[in-house]
Amino acid sequence: MSRGFNIAIVGATGAVGQEIMNVLQERNFPVSDLKVLASARSQGKKLKYGDDELTVLEARPDSFQGVEIAFFASGAVSKELVPEAVKRGAVAIDNSSTFRLDPDVPLVVPEVNPEDVEKHNGIIANPNCSTIIFVVPLKPLHDAARVKRVVVTTMQAVSGAGKVAVDELLLQTRQVLDGEKVQPHVFDHQIAFNLIPHIDVFLDNSYSKEEMKLVNETQKILHDPELQITATTVRVPVLRSHSESINLETERELTADEAREILKGAPGIIVRDDPVNLEYPMPLFTSEKDGVFVGRIRKDHSRDQALNLWVVSDQLRKGAATNAVQIAELLISKNLL
Amino acid sequence: MSRGFNIAIVGATGAVGQEIMNVLQERNFPVSDLKVLASARSQGKKLKYGDDELTVLEARPDSFQGVEIAFFASGAVSKELVPEAVKRGAVAIDNSSTFRLDPDVPLVVPEVNPEDVEKHNGIIANPNCSTIIFVVPLKPLHDAARVKRVVVTTMQAVSGAGKVAVDELLLQTRQVLDGEKVQPHVFDHQIAFNLIPHIDVFLDNSYSKEEMKLVNETQKILHDPELQITATTVRVPVLRSHSESINLETERELTADEAREILKGAPGIIVRDDPVNLEYPMPLFTSEKDGVFVGRIRKDHSRDQALNLWVVSDQLRKGAATNAVQIAELLISKNLL
Repeated sequence: MSRGFNIAIVGATGAVGQEIMNVLQERNFPVSDLKVLASARSQGKKLKYGDDELTVLEARPDSFQGVEIAFFASGAVSKELVPEAVKRGAVAIDNSSTFRLDPDVPLVVPEVNPEDVEKHNGIIANPNCSTIIFVVPLKPLHDAARVKRVVVTTMQAVSGAGKVAVDELLLQTRQVLDGEKVQPHVFDHQIAFNLIPHIDVFLDNSYSKEEMKLVNETQKILHDPELQITATTVRVPVLRSHSESINLETERELTADEAREILKGAPGIIVRDDPVNLEYPMPLFTSEKDGVFVGRIRKDHSRDQALNLWVVSDQLRKGAATNAVQIAELLISKNLL
Repeated sequence: MSRGFNIAIVGATGAVGQEIMNVLQERNFPVSDLKVLASARSQGKKLKYGDDELTVLEARPDSFQGVEIAFFASGAVSKELVPEAVKRGAVAIDNSSTFRLDPDVPLVVPEVNPEDVEKHNGIIANPNCSTIIFVVPLKPLHDAARVKRVVVTTMQAVSGAGKVAVDELLLQTRQVLDGEKVQPHVFDHQIAFNLIPHIDVFLDNSYSKEEMKLVNETQKILHDPELQITATTVRVPVLRSHSESINLETERELTADEAREILKGAPGIIVRDDPVNLEYPMPLFTSEKDGVFVGRIRKDHSRDQALNLWVVSDQLRKGAATNAVQIAELLISKNLL
């Protein structure tokens, strides 16, 4: 084990921040000092980290003095505070969308484009949750057979919208069961026993921002602006783990068996594909795990060189916290701090 | 109004049978006599029909004596009893999959292929719920621009698996909220707060029967065996109404605006497509309605001549009961009884 590092987590009280703290501990990340930062509102709160109790401090420009790795888990402050952290010598691993498409900022999934961290100028962006889950199985298939086009429909858990959204689903669900009136707050419509084909705001091209993130971020991560992707993103009444129904066309034909073997051998992927024996990925059973689970791998007979996949992963773990911590591990192993 | 007809409903106590009784009343269907039939277990039960109270009789071959239209809403007995009804002079409108792909049996969605009823030999098959919802918007786009290929992912409500499945979702949901143990019975896995990419049994080609129904039934209804379709069907914790994320490629290019106008002018379709103002179809708000709701209509920029749609409809109404009653209306209007 190398020396420990001085770490800060901005947004430590939120869903992703909490998960980063869990993942750092589980992976025995070499922490020398850990600052837990949040908005003024959370100042003074106590957070457990192993046997330690840490006190939440307000995130301010001078919070980053002496920090080597700063995890930004709260989108609200990234624009203002990421440059302040970098100015003070920290490397910022930012989970917000602020810098993701900036050509000077690497957008990294360690299983997919680890070499991109080497080009960092102080900031490394963590992709959107649904992008990470999407690109992990896409990459080995792209390498093997060149993916030309993907049609993807995501079914995203409420925890992607934070703890308040989890509370809202649970509250609304109880209200429906008890025959009470439901009043949406976090989502625009009732989410209990419903589906909402709307995540983030809509753009001029009629796609949601969430849908375009899948397109633009994937092209950047795979360094392939020719890769054609079209997405539909749907919020579903699931607490945790996003699911994605993926149809892909490749240049070279792959059988389902070939694709399955490629995926089995690829990093970060767990293949669960024996539907006759009721084995396929489901959000309930992939939550609080780090893998990207892939199943229902089959030839799409509607077109030569096409396949269908069903992919599920915990969007707070691999889709956010785990990926961010993996980026930090990569920085350490490559001596890039 | 023409004369009334002698009607029988087989499986009258089930979810679809009940819905057929509702739809007959709402549409003022010309009923002279109505026999409500079910398995021996339900014999003697009382069912309300308007101001009348009807007594459930056991469905037997001789139940169809004097019946002119027999709705079969229970798959279990279709193979045995449909021929008995036909032998006694009834026209059978069958909601099961038994006869759907039989070349001697028309498979009919009245908005799509009404002319096919004319070729009936006593049996008309009602398509699978997800097929009906799929084919209603597909047809006018196919007529306008020739659809060549469709990638569809369905998100299907539990009521598609009957009343017991609705009870199971409600029970499991309460158990999860109360921190109790969940024991699945109707579905193979917990459905509360989960997604299950498995509907009906799996076939040798790794697709589920539900997925292949969408392919085979749609090709038959549209009389187009060249139309290429690939499907992924997923059970979701929604009580009622199926949702479908549809990507289609056409021979002639259609703009989103053109597609929207075509769909607005097509029978059976209600366009809800103003996402910026939070207007798109959702299962919670399409339930107990007859329309097929279409929204999120947009160009798929990943390929020329491709579009995305989001389609939602009540699978017990238009997906089953309403379609069956519309077939009966068609038979009457065309004098085909």
